[in-house]
Amino acid sequence: MGEAERQAARAAKKKKGLVIVNTGNGKGKTTAALGILFRAWGRGMRVCMLQFLKHENASFGENKAARKLGIEIVPTGDGFTWTSRDMDETVARALHGWQLAQQKITSGEYDIVILDEFTYPLHYGWLDTQDVIAWLREHKPPMLHLVITGRYAPDALIEFADLVTEMRLVKHPFKEQQIRAQPGIEF
Amino acid sequence: MGEAERQAARAAKKKKGLVIVNTGNGKGKTTAALGILFRAWGRGMRVCMLQFLKHENASFGENKAARKLGIEIVPTGDGFTWTSRDMDETVARALHGWQLAQQKITSGEYDIVILDEFTYPLHYGWLDTQDVIAWLREHKPPMLHLVITGRYAPDALIEFADLVTEMRLVKHPFKEQQIRAQPGIEF
Repeated sequence: MGEAERQAARAAKKKKGLVIVNTGNGKGKTTAALGILFRAWGRGMRVCMLQFLKHENASFGENKAARKLGIEIVPTGDGFTWTSRDMDETVARALHGWQLAQQKITSGEYDIVILDEFTYPLHYGWLDTQDVIAWLREHKPPMLHLVITGRYAPDALIEFADLVTEMRLVKHPFKEQQIRAQPGIEF
Repeated sequence: MGEAERQAARAAKKKKGLVIVNTGNGKGKTTAALGILFRAWGRGMRVCMLQFLKHENASFGENKAARKLGIEIVPTGDGFTWTSRDMDETVARALHGWQLAQQKITSGEYDIVILDEFTYPLHYGWLDTQDVIAWLREHKPPMLHLVITGRYAPDALIEFADLVTEMRLVKHPFKEQQIRAQPGIEF
């Protein structure tokens, strides 16, 4: 391929906002999303993360770091709600989180929006995956990058996404060696 | 299990510095390491990252972010050197990088040391994997977390590590859709 052909090939490549999914049973789904956030912040891009599961530990490293940097990390949902007895409330909270996400996505205020653990409301049917995808297809700004994390990403979401990575657990110390989850690494 | 038993079980769990490996052909290996760095920085932990491959783009988002935060990200090696004709120089540079890593690891100045793309010098035999592991076994401070990223993690390294995740490529836009690698996401 000559230089002119290379240039033409390069120009033909599209630049567009990606839909990125980090799924699988391994570590690093949320952590890699935080890495994107860190990188993008380094470039002066506008980022926010919505957390769809509320975790037990109220002062995660990422929340502390985000506060220091003025990055928005917003908890939605009521966390670990698949054990909740009040399913109506669970659904209502998932819907609330999704409405918040829709606002962020269409606000024009961000270059990257991260929906952390967003696969769970889809997987458990608190939100309709097809409706969510249809909405994204119509309303996601073309240049906005959208990052979705969590286990059990529905097939339709994987089909819709541009970039999908499965984080696969090969070896886990907390199960095998009885080692505690540790601050800065796990949360 | 009663409360006393639960407490005993919890106390029996070890707290120790982990050896973490992010490998596989997918995205997110380095990015998840950056997420750890971001989290740990949020907690006021002392972190540094040594980069064993020099990349083409001199102003990665992560380097910009690190500079802003005063986090050390140090390039070693001469990057993409498996195509180098001067293999002696390649080996010398890998060794130089490893010596730098040894200094950082034993310095007592860090809680977390990240060796980014460190699997390559091992995989290509520029460094001896068994020697590296033997050194780590003897010299890594017990509480120091060590994070190693890159494809082709040698079996012996996986065996030695506490936590191993394979980032598996499910879908990649830059191959399938002719979309460019994009700032803030890819680098």
